[in-house]
Amino acid sequence: MTVAERPDITIAAAIGCGVIGAGWVARLRLRGVDVHAYDPSPQAGQVLAEVYENALLAWRELGLEPAADEIGALTMCDSIEAACSADGVGLVVESVPERLDLKHSTLLAIDAANPTAIIASSTSGFKPSVLAEPLAHPERLVVAHPFNPVYLLPLVEIVAGERTDPALTDRAMALYTALGMHPLRVRAEIDAHIADRLLEAVWREALWLVNDGIATTEEIDDAIRYGFGLRWAQMGLFETYRIAGGLGGMRHFIGQFGECLSWPWTKLMDTPELTDELIDTIATQSDAQSGAYDVRELERIRDRNVAAILLALERNDWGAGRTVAALRDG
Amino acid sequence: MTVAERPDITIAAAIGCGVIGAGWVARLRLRGVDVHAYDPSPQAGQVLAEVYENALLAWRELGLEPAADEIGALTMCDSIEAACSADGVGLVVESVPERLDLKHSTLLAIDAANPTAIIASSTSGFKPSVLAEPLAHPERLVVAHPFNPVYLLPLVEIVAGERTDPALTDRAMALYTALGMHPLRVRAEIDAHIADRLLEAVWREALWLVNDGIATTEEIDDAIRYGFGLRWAQMGLFETYRIAGGLGGMRHFIGQFGECLSWPWTKLMDTPELTDELIDTIATQSDAQSGAYDVRELERIRDRNVAAILLALERNDWGAGRTVAALRDG
Repeated sequence: MTVAERPDITIAAAIGCGVIGAGWVARLRLRGVDVHAYDPSPQAGQVLAEVYENALLAWRELGLEPAADEIGALTMCDSIEAACSADGVGLVVESVPERLDLKHSTLLAIDAANPTAIIASSTSGFKPSVLAEPLAHPERLVVAHPFNPVYLLPLVEIVAGERTDPALTDRAMALYTALGMHPLRVRAEIDAHIADRLLEAVWREALWLVNDGIATTEEIDDAIRYGFGLRWAQMGLFETYRIAGGLGGMRHFIGQFGECLSWPWTKLMDTPELTDELIDTIATQSDAQSGAYDVRELERIRDRNVAAILLALERNDWGAGRTVAALRDG
Repeated sequence: MTVAERPDITIAAAIGCGVIGAGWVARLRLRGVDVHAYDPSPQAGQVLAEVYENALLAWRELGLEPAADEIGALTMCDSIEAACSADGVGLVVESVPERLDLKHSTLLAIDAANPTAIIASSTSGFKPSVLAEPLAHPERLVVAHPFNPVYLLPLVEIVAGERTDPALTDRAMALYTALGMHPLRVRAEIDAHIADRLLEAVWREALWLVNDGIATTEEIDDAIRYGFGLRWAQMGLFETYRIAGGLGGMRHFIGQFGECLSWPWTKLMDTPELTDELIDTIATQSDAQSGAYDVRELERIRDRNVAAILLALERNDWGAGRTVAALRDG
C-alpha cells in the first residue's frame, strides 16, 4: 500500500497505556501517526518511553526505522476527554484492563468526547456488541485485537458488532494494513475471538502438566520452541497437517487422527484450580527458567528473534515476511 | 558434541517407513549412521527416497550437507528380522501406525530378532510401559517421539517406562543430542507425552471454530502464523507470558489472566463430532487454502522456511538455533 492509498487517519488517541496500549502507540508513531495518550497511572509515561525504545530497536533490526521527521508526535493528556477531543483525532484506541465495567465507562467517555472517530477496542475477550451496548454511536465501534509485541506481530483480529457500520469495518481493515499488519476479519462474534481461544486451550493443558508434575514451565516451553513452534511461525495447524497427511492430504490426515479425539485424555475437559500452591510452583519454576534476565532484557531478546524470523520469511516471500516487505515498499 | 564423544551407535534398523520413519532414516544417514529399513508397503522405497531428497535440500540450506562418503548407507530389507539382525545394529527405530496391537506384534518381532539394541518407539500416544508389556527385554525400550519434519525439527520427547533401564535412557539422551536434536526427558508417562497434549487441545478448539462457522482453516492458520506462532518459534508459553506480566512477572500475569479460566468458554470442555459434513467442510476449505501446491511442494516451502528460521536463531545464539550450531561444530 502506497502512502497515497493510506486511509486518512493521521492523528489518533490512545486510552490505556499498559503493554498493549504502549505497543499501539509505538506502531502508530512509527507509521507517522500523531498520538494523544491518556492513562491514569503515574508510570504511563515511562512505559510508553520504554516500549517505544524497544519498538525503535526492533524496526531498526528490520531496516524499517523512519527518519526522525516521519515519526508521529506523542502528546500526553490528562483526561480521556482531552486526548479524544484533540484536533483531527480520527481513531481512538482503547486498551484499558479487561473488566467490563471499566471498558463501558471508558467507551462512554470516549463516545461523548469525540462523536466521529473510529473507536477500536483492544479487548482480548469481549464481543464488540457487548462493549457497544451503552454507546450513543455504536456503529463506529470495532474490536481490533492485537498481539504482544504490537509493534512487531502483524496479526490484528477485526471483529464487528451487530450495530457496527460495515463501511467502518472496511476502513479499519485498510487502516491496519497501512500500519503494516495482517488484519483478520472474524466472521462472527464469540468470546475471545479466534487466537485467544487456541491460546487458552494450550494454557489450560499446560497448567495441568505443571500441576501433575509431568513437566516444568521450562520443559513445556522447550516442547513448543524446539518443535511445533518452529512450524507455526510459517504455516498454521491445518496446512501443516495437510502435509502430514502425505499425498492423501487433509481427508487422510483426519481419518488417521480423528479417532484420537475420543481417547480418554480427560484433563482437557476440566480446569485446574489455581491454588496458591500451583501459582507458587509456576512462579518458582518460571524464576528458575527465566530469572537470569530481567523483563526488559527478555523483551529485547524476543524482539530480536522475532525480527530475525520476519526477515527470514521476507527473504522467502512467505507469510508474515510479506507484511515486512509491504512496509518496506511504502 | 565432538565425534569422539558420540555414542557408539553407527548402524540402526528402521521398522516402519512412513513420513516419520523416513524422516528418522534421513536424519540418521545425514549423521553418518547406516540404516537397515523395513516396511511392508510397496511404496516404502519411494517415500524413503523422496523424504531423503527433501532432507538433503534442507541440510544444504542450513550449510550442513555432509560429504558423500560421510553419509550413512541405506539397505532395504524384506522383514523385521532381516533389518534388526543385521551386523552391528545398536538402535531399532519403530515407527509403525498408532495401533496398540500392531505396535505390540512389531515390538515382539524386534525383541526376538535383536536381543541387545536400544528399541526406540516413535509413538505419539502410548506410554512406554504399555508398549513394553509383552517384551522379554523391556529394560531396553524407550519412547523417542519426534516431530515432522524429523530431519529439521530438533525436539524429541524421551520417555522411559517403569522397567526401562535408566542407563539406557541416559544413552538415548546422548544419542539424540549427537543426532543434532534437543531430547526432552519427560518426567512421567502419560498418554501423548507433552507436546501432543498441547497440540490436541488446539486441534479440538480449531475443529469447533470451523464447525461453528467462526473461521475457516485458512483464517485459523493465519491467526497462528501472523501472531503467536512467531513468538513460539523462539520462546514458549510461560516465558512469553512472564514478559506479558511486565515488571510484575509470572505472578502478576496469572493474577490478571487466572480468572478467565472460569469464564464460560464451554467448547473447550467438549469434543466436536467428526461428522462427514465437518470432514467435508475441513477438506474443502483446506483445498481452497493450500490446493495450489501439491504436498511435495508444500513440504519444500515448509522446509525452506524452517531452515531459514533455524539459521536466524543460530545467528542470534538462541533456542533451536543452538542445535544447528552444535551440528556445525561436530
